[in-house]
Amino acid sequence: MRTLILAFALAGLWFTTARADPPGLTGRWSVSVDFFGVPRYFTMQLAQQGPGLSGNFDGDDLTGTVNGSDVAIAAKDVRGGYENLKATLRDGGLTGSIEIAFSNDVSHPSTHEFTATPVHPRPGKPTRHVFTPTAFHRQFSAAIKPVLTVAPGDTIATWTVDAGGSDAKGTARSLGGNPETGPFYIDGALPGDTLVVRIVKLRLNRDWAISDDGVVPRGLDSGLAVTMKDNGKGVRWRLDRSRGVATSEATNPHLAGYTVPLRPMLGCVGVAPGPAQAPPPTGDSGGWGGNMDFNEVVEGATVYLPVSNPGALLYIGDAHAAQGDGELTGDALETSADVELTVDVIPGKRVPGPRVEGATHLFAVGLGGSLDDAFRIATSNMAAWLTDQYQLTPSEVAQVLGTVAEYRVTEVADRNAGIALGIRKDRLRALVRAK
Amino acid sequence: MRTLILAFALAGLWFTTARADPPGLTGRWSVSVDFFGVPRYFTMQLAQQGPGLSGNFDGDDLTGTVNGSDVAIAAKDVRGGYENLKATLRDGGLTGSIEIAFSNDVSHPSTHEFTATPVHPRPGKPTRHVFTPTAFHRQFSAAIKPVLTVAPGDTIATWTVDAGGSDAKGTARSLGGNPETGPFYIDGALPGDTLVVRIVKLRLNRDWAISDDGVVPRGLDSGLAVTMKDNGKGVRWRLDRSRGVATSEATNPHLAGYTVPLRPMLGCVGVAPGPAQAPPPTGDSGGWGGNMDFNEVVEGATVYLPVSNPGALLYIGDAHAAQGDGELTGDALETSADVELTVDVIPGKRVPGPRVEGATHLFAVGLGGSLDDAFRIATSNMAAWLTDQYQLTPSEVAQVLGTVAEYRVTEVADRNAGIALGIRKDRLRALVRAK
Amino acid sequence: MRTLILAFALAGLWFTTARADPPGLTGRWSVSVDFFGVPRYFTMQLAQQGPGLSGNFDGDDLTGTVNGSDVAIAAKDVRGGYENLKATLRDGGLTGSIEIAFSNDVSHPSTHEFTATPVHPRPGKPTRHVFTPTAFHRQFSAAIKPVLTVAPGDTIATWTVDAGGSDAKGTARSLGGNPETGPFYIDGALPGDTLVVRIVKLRLNRDWAISDDGVVPRGLDSGLAVTMKDNGKGVRWRLDRSRGVATSEATNPHLAGYTVPLRPMLGCVGVAPGPAQAPPPTGDSGGWGGNMDFNEVVEGATVYLPVSNPGALLYIGDAHAAQGDGELTGDALETSADVELTVDVIPGKRVPGPRVEGATHLFAVGLGGSLDDAFRIATSNMAAWLTDQYQLTPSEVAQVLGTVAEYRVTEVADRNAGIALGIRKDRLRALVRAK
Amino acid sequence: MRTLILAFALAGLWFTTARADPPGLTGRWSVSVDFFGVPRYFTMQLAQQGPGLSGNFDGDDLTGTVNGSDVAIAAKDVRGGYENLKATLRDGGLTGSIEIAFSNDVSHPSTHEFTATPVHPRPGKPTRHVFTPTAFHRQFSAAIKPVLTVAPGDTIATWTVDAGGSDAKGTARSLGGNPETGPFYIDGALPGDTLVVRIVKLRLNRDWAISDDGVVPRGLDSGLAVTMKDNGKGVRWRLDRSRGVATSEATNPHLAGYTVPLRPMLGCVGVAPGPAQAPPPTGDSGGWGGNMDFNEVVEGATVYLPVSNPGALLYIGDAHAAQGDGELTGDALETSADVELTVDVIPGKRVPGPRVEGATHLFAVGLGGSLDDAFRIATSNMAAWLTDQYQLTPSEVAQVLGTVAEYRVTEVADRNAGIALGIRKDRLRALVRAK
Repeated sequence: MRTLILAFALAGLWFTTARADPPGLTGRWSVSVDFFGVPRYFTMQLAQQGPGLSGNFDGDDLTGTVNGSDVAIAAKDVRGGYENLKATLRDGGLTGSIEIAFSNDVSHPSTHEFTATPVHPRPGKPTRHVFTPTAFHRQFSAAIKPVLTVAPGDTIATWTVDAGGSDAKGTARSLGGNPETGPFYIDGALPGDTLVVRIVKLRLNRDWAISDDGVVPRGLDSGLAVTMKDNGKGVRWRLDRSRGVATSEATNPHLAGYTVPLRPMLGCVGVAPGPAQAPPPTGDSGGWGGNMDFNEVVEGATVYLPVSNPGALLYIGDAHAAQGDGELTGDALETSADVELTVDVIPGKRVPGPRVEGATHLFAVGLGGSLDDAFRIATSNMAAWLTDQYQLTPSEVAQVLGTVAEYRVTEVADRNAGIALGIRKDRLRALVRAK
Repeated sequence: MRTLILAFALAGLWFTTARADPPGLTGRWSVSVDFFGVPRYFTMQLAQQGPGLSGNFDGDDLTGTVNGSDVAIAAKDVRGGYENLKATLRDGGLTGSIEIAFSNDVSHPSTHEFTATPVHPRPGKPTRHVFTPTAFHRQFSAAIKPVLTVAPGDTIATWTVDAGGSDAKGTARSLGGNPETGPFYIDGALPGDTLVVRIVKLRLNRDWAISDDGVVPRGLDSGLAVTMKDNGKGVRWRLDRSRGVATSEATNPHLAGYTVPLRPMLGCVGVAPGPAQAPPPTGDSGGWGGNMDFNEVVEGATVYLPVSNPGALLYIGDAHAAQGDGELTGDALETSADVELTVDVIPGKRVPGPRVEGATHLFAVGLGGSLDDAFRIATSNMAAWLTDQYQLTPSEVAQVLGTVAEYRVTEVADRNAGIALGIRKDRLRALVRAK
Repeated sequence: MRTLILAFALAGLWFTTARADPPGLTGRWSVSVDFFGVPRYFTMQLAQQGPGLSGNFDGDDLTGTVNGSDVAIAAKDVRGGYENLKATLRDGGLTGSIEIAFSNDVSHPSTHEFTATPVHPRPGKPTRHVFTPTAFHRQFSAAIKPVLTVAPGDTIATWTVDAGGSDAKGTARSLGGNPETGPFYIDGALPGDTLVVRIVKLRLNRDWAISDDGVVPRGLDSGLAVTMKDNGKGVRWRLDRSRGVATSEATNPHLAGYTVPLRPMLGCVGVAPGPAQAPPPTGDSGGWGGNMDFNEVVEGATVYLPVSNPGALLYIGDAHAAQGDGELTGDALETSADVELTVDVIPGKRVPGPRVEGATHLFAVGLGGSLDDAFRIATSNMAAWLTDQYQLTPSEVAQVLGTVAEYRVTEVADRNAGIALGIRKDRLRALVRAK
Repeated sequence: MRTLILAFALAGLWFTTARADPPGLTGRWSVSVDFFGVPRYFTMQLAQQGPGLSGNFDGDDLTGTVNGSDVAIAAKDVRGGYENLKATLRDGGLTGSIEIAFSNDVSHPSTHEFTATPVHPRPGKPTRHVFTPTAFHRQFSAAIKPVLTVAPGDTIATWTVDAGGSDAKGTARSLGGNPETGPFYIDGALPGDTLVVRIVKLRLNRDWAISDDGVVPRGLDSGLAVTMKDNGKGVRWRLDRSRGVATSEATNPHLAGYTVPLRPMLGCVGVAPGPAQAPPPTGDSGGWGGNMDFNEVVEGATVYLPVSNPGALLYIGDAHAAQGDGELTGDALETSADVELTVDVIPGKRVPGPRVEGATHLFAVGLGGSLDDAFRIATSNMAAWLTDQYQLTPSEVAQVLGTVAEYRVTEVADRNAGIALGIRKDRLRALVRAK
C-alpha cells in the first residue's frame, strides 16, 4: 500500500470515526431526493444528543429534533438557501419530504420526497471477490444495476473484453466501443467522496491485439491528412507474452524487425456521473474518468476519481497491450485482460478530476475539448492537489509547478483530448505536509 | 559524435563530393536575387563539361553555356515556371540578371539583378573558436552582421547573458527579452540545408537566477485565474553549483526544504528566417527554432534547424538553470551560462522544423498558436522524419507513432505553444535504414 | 414553402417514385440487424422482376431470388465486404439472418438476426397534428418511445417547457437541462436520409424568462475571469409581448432603459443519434443537431438534420425569448413556447451536419470541442453543400467561400462550441444548378 | 463626425485643457529614457506653481522643483517603485538622468539618460494633407522615419499598393507581403493614448484584383484538406467599378454568372508597437491592429488603436475590393486603392486592443493564436469598453453581452486568428452614459 500514502494519511482519520455503530441517528447518511423522477444525492452528517440533532446537510449547518419516529431537520446556508426535512424513521432509515430553496436561485422553493439511509461502518477485514462478467456495458451509467457490492479495502479479481467486445478466446461478447466490466458498488462511497482504485494486477490473457494504421484528425495538419488519406485499415498484432513484445502482422516492408514492448494498461477506469446527467458513452471521458487512455494506468498504479453516486459505480475496460502517448491511430493494441483491483474511499474529500499515482510520479489528468482546455484543467487539478495536500500558497504552487511540471499528451483520439501533468514524487518529499 | 549518427550517415555522402575544388564552375552555388532591395536566395548546382553546363537551379533542371566570361543558364519546372540567367564571371563569382516566372503565378515574369558565389569546400580539420560577445541582439535577424564565421565541423566556445540581459557578474549588458549571442555565420550553409548544432558544453557561470511566481494565461482556467490573481512577483533563486540544486529566496513558508535539481538548458537556439520575412523578436519561436524553451536542449543534445540564409546565422541565448515543462511561470530559472557548440551542415536536406536529438530520444518540435496546432505540427515533423530517414510507408509511420510516441508540452509561456514528439532511439534500431 | 426550394427541387423527384404501392417486394426497405442486442440499421432498395431481385443493400449492389415466402439476397462491395441474407416473407415484412463481412475488417464475418419492413408510400395529403406533451426527456435518445408518428409533409403543433423544466404557467414539469418535447417519428425517414424541419410558428406563451449574469469560461481570459468572479446569479426578465421587448428585473443601476427585442428561437432541434451510440444529454450538440443554441433557428427557418434511426426521432425544446450570439451567460432568456413544425424527408441524401435555411441566408453549422474545430467543420459542411447542390469544383468552392462567407459564433456555453458559416441566398442565385 | 460621438464626448474635455500654451513647465510631456540604446517612453504631466512642480510620471504622483534651468523631480508608486529625475531645461525641453526602480522587481534600481519634450497644443484648424508615397514598408516598425507629420484632426489623402506590391497601374513597387503606406506621425499622440482613424474615403483605382483558389489550413478538416489538395492557384478578378461587381477570370464552368459586390476595405490599419518590441511583419496583427483583414474597415468606419510610440506611427495598406469573412482563401480580392483618413487622439485613455465603429455597429476585435483565444480577447476588449464608457457593473456587462453580442470570425488566414464582437449601436442608446 506504499503508493497510497498520500491519500491515506488523510483518509485514516476519517475511517476511525466510522468504524463503530453510531448511537441513535449519529453518523453519515446518504440522502436521495426525487426531482421529477430523477434522484439527486446529498450527504448528511448527524450527531444526536438526546432528542437534539446537529450536523450538516450537504455542507449547510443543521439542527433537528427526534420525537419517537418523527424527525425534523432544518439547514441553511449563508446565501439564503435552505433545506427543511420532515421524516419518519423506519427500519433504520428515514423517509419523508424535503423543502429546498437553492441559494442564488430566483425561482420558488420546491418540495420533494426523499429517503435517507445510514452509511455502513467499514468492515474490519478486507475481502477478495472473484467476479466473472456476463454482460458488458457501453455507457458509464448510474441506471445499470451493480454487478457486485464490495466494501472499502476489498479486492476484485475479474477480466475485461477488448474494445471491440471480444474476450480472451476471441469470442464476441458485445457490440464494440469499449464495453465495460461493472458497475461495482463500493459500499459507503457517497457523492462528495473520492474513490481510490489500485490496479493490483493487470495481465494479458490472449496472444493477439487489434489496432489501426491511420492517424486521428487531431494529429493531422493539412499535409499529413493528404499523406494519410488511404490509411485506416485494421492491423492485427501478435502478442508474445514470453518475450514481452508485440509485432505487427500487417504487410510492412520496413518493419520486419520492429517490436513493441508490452506494457498492459486500462484505457477505461471510470465512475458513473450523477443521475441528473445523461450517461456518457464508453468512448467518452471527463472529470469522472472513463476512457482516459492514459498509458500510465498500469499494474501498480492508483486512480483517484470523484464520486457522484452512492456506491461510486465503478466501470473498467478497454485494456491495451501497449500504447504510445495519445492513442494516435485511434486505437492502441486492443486486447482482453485479467484485472485485479483494490478499492477504497476517501470520505468527504472530492478530487476535482482524475488523478493517477504511479511508481515515480503523481499525475493530474485534464480532459477537455481541445488540448489547450485539457492543459488548463490538468494544471488546475494539480494546483488544487498541491494546495490541499501541502497547503501551499498560490505563489508556492506556481514556484513548484514552474520547476517540476512534466506535461504529457495522453489522449487525442476521443472527443475529449487529454493532458496529464506529472510530478516526480521524490521532488515533493521535502514539502511540509498538511496536518 | 555518437548522437549524430542518424543525420551524418546521410550527410557523409554529400560532404565527400564537396571536399575538393570543383573544376570550372562545377559545384554548389549560392545565388542572391534582388527583389526591390530585398534579397531572395536560391541554391544552384552546376556541372561543367567543356562549354556546357548542366545541373539544377532551386530544384529545376538547367542547361547552360560558358563563353569566356559570359555565362547563360536556363532552367524550368514542370508547371510552367522558369528562370533565365545571363551573367558575367568575375573573381570566381557570377553577376548578372535573372528573369523569373513562378509557376502557378498569374502575373508576368520579372527581371532582377543577381550575384552568385561558389560554396567553399569543407576544410579538412575543424577549428575551435573562442568568442567573447560584446553586443546582444533582440531579434533573430538576417540583417545583423555576423560576429564570427566558422566552418562546418568547427566548435564555438562563448557565453550568453540571461533573459533580462545580465551577464555572469550580474552586470546589465542589454535590455531584456532574451538578448542573444551571435549571429554566427556557418560557411557553406545554404537555404535548403539543415544546420546541426551540438551542445558540447553548457555550464552555469554564476550563483543566482531570476524567475516569477505567477502562472501564464495559457495555464489558467477561470478558477485558477482568480486564485493566482495577486501573483506575478519576481523570485530570486540561489544556484548551488556544488550540490547541483537551486533554492528559492522568496518567503515561502512551506518550501523550506524544497530544492530544484540544476539541469542547465538553452531557451533559445535559432537561425534567422529568410530576409523577406520580418525578423522575429527573441521571445518568439517557429520552424526556424528560436525561443523554444524546451528543457531537453541540454549539454550533449543536438539541435537540427532549417537554413534560410547563406551562413545559416545562428543565435543562442536565454539559458535556464532548470525549467519545468512549459515554462509555466513565464520564465524559468533565468541565468547566464558558458556554452560550447559544434556546428555542422547537412546540405540539400531541409528539416521541416526543429528537431532535437538527446541521449535517449529523438524529438520533433511543433510550435504553433495553440497546443492543438503545435501537436499537429510536431506529428507532421516526426512523420516526415520517419519517412525520410527510414522510407516508411504512411501505414508504417502510423503504426510506429501509434506505439512509440511520447508527447510532451514544451512551452506555454510564449506566443507560440510548443509540443515535442519524442521517440526512444532504441525503439527505432530495428527499422530498416534508408539507403 | 419558398424557403425550401433548394432542398425540394431535388427531393421532389424521389418522392414521385414512392407514391404508389410497389409491386411485389419492389421499393425501399428499412432493415434492422441485431448486434448483441443493439440494432444496427441499413436501407435496402429492391426491384422485383418475376422471382429475381436487384437493387442495393446499404449502397452495395445486390441480387436475389424470391421463392414463395423464401427470400435470398446477396450483396457485396468492391473492397471485399459482403452481406448474405436469408429471410422469410410474412405480413409484408422479412425476417431472417444476415451474414456480414465488413470491408477493411480483419476479423471474421458474423451472422445476426434481422427484420426488414417496407417503407410506406408518402400520403397524398398532409395532416396537421396537435400534440400536448406530458413527459419531457433529457436525452436525445433512440430508446424513448415516440410520442407521435407523422408523415412527411405533416405539421405538428405543440409546445415546449423552458430549459429549467417549467411550462407556460410556471409549473415545474421536469428536472432542468433542456427537457425536450418528442420524440416524433417521421414515417419513411431512414438512416441515410435528411430530415427537414420547418418552423412554421414559434410564439412565446408567458411573460417571463430566466437568465444568468455570469460569463461562461470560454468567454473569459484571465483578466475577465477575475472581474466576473462574483457573478453567476439568476436574472429574471419581463417579456412584454405587446411591445416586443424584454427587460431585466435585476438591480441594474445603469440598465434602467435597456431593452432586448424579443426574437424567439429554439435552442434545441435534434434527432436521436444511432442506437449504437449512447444517447447524448439534452445540453449537448453534434452532427445530429441538438442543443445548438443558434439564434437563427426562428419562426420561418428550416433545419436540415441527418437521419440515423428509422423515423428520425425528432426532439425540440429550450426556447429562448432572445439570445445574443454564443449564449455568453450560459443561458439565454429561457422560456416556454408554442411551436408549429412542418417536417419532411429527403430520401437517400444525408447532410453531413446541421444546416439552417433562413429568410436571407443558408447556414452550415459546425459543432466541435473548440471554436477552431467548429470552424473547420462548418467550412467542410458548407463546401459539401456547394459541391452537392451546384456541383462546384474544389477551386470554385474556394472562390465562392472566399468572397461570400459570413462566419458567426453561435454557441460557447456548452460542451461543443458552434460556428455557423452563412451565405446570402441572393449571392448563389446565379450559380448553375445541379441537374 | 457623427460616428465618433462615443469617443469624443470623452475626448473633448481633455482637448480643452491642451489648447492654450502652458505656463512654465505646465502641461503634458513626452519622456524618452534610454535603456541600453533602446528608448522607453513615459508620459509626464506637470503643473508648475512658482518653483514647485506637481503632477504625475507614468501615473505615479510626483513633486519637483525648478531652480533656473535645473529641474528635479521625484515620483513614487504605492508598491515601492520610484523615479528620480535630474534635468536641465534647454530650448523648452528637458535633458538629464533618471533613476528608476520598478515595483515588484527584485533587481536593483538603474539610472539612465532621458529627454523630455512638451506636447504641442492641438492646432485650431485641421489641415488636409495630400501625400504621394514613394517607399512601402513591410514591418510595422517604430524605427522607420515618419513620412509625414500631421496634427490631431487633420486629414491625409494618399494611396496604397496591393498586397503584392503593385500600384494602380500594375507597376511593382515593392516586394509583396502587404507593403504599407506610412508611417504617419500624429503630433501629440503619446504612449497611453488612443489613436482614432476615420476612413473618410476608400476607393478602388484599378480594374483588377488578385486572389487565390485554395483554403487556408485553419479552414481545413482532414476531409477538406484532401479535397482541396490541388488548389492554391492564383485567380485574377475583373473589377467593374461602374456596376460595382467583381468577376473571376479563372476557368470556372459553374461560375459563369457569379459576381461579387465590390465593398472596398483596408486589410491593414496599424500603429507601430513600442520600440522595445521587435517590429512585426505586415502580415501580422495584434493589439496594435495591423493586418486585421476585417471586412468592416470600409469607407465611413473609424478604427481605434492603442498608441505605443510618440506620434503613434500609423501605417495603412492591403486594400481589398471585397472579402468574405476570414479571408478563407488566404487572400481577398487584392488591389490598390485611394484612401483618405482623418486622424485624432484621445489622450490618456488607451484602448486594450483594436476597436472599429461602423455605421450601425461597434466592434471589439480580438486577435490571438487560435479562434478560442481571439474570442476571449474580443470579449474582454468589449467588456472593458462597456465598463469604461457606461460604467456598467460586471453583472450588467454580462447581461448586455448575453443579449446583444454578435460575434464574427474576421480572419483565419494569418498567424493570428481574429474574432470581432459587434454590438448594434441602437441597442446601447438607452444606457446611462458615463459622466
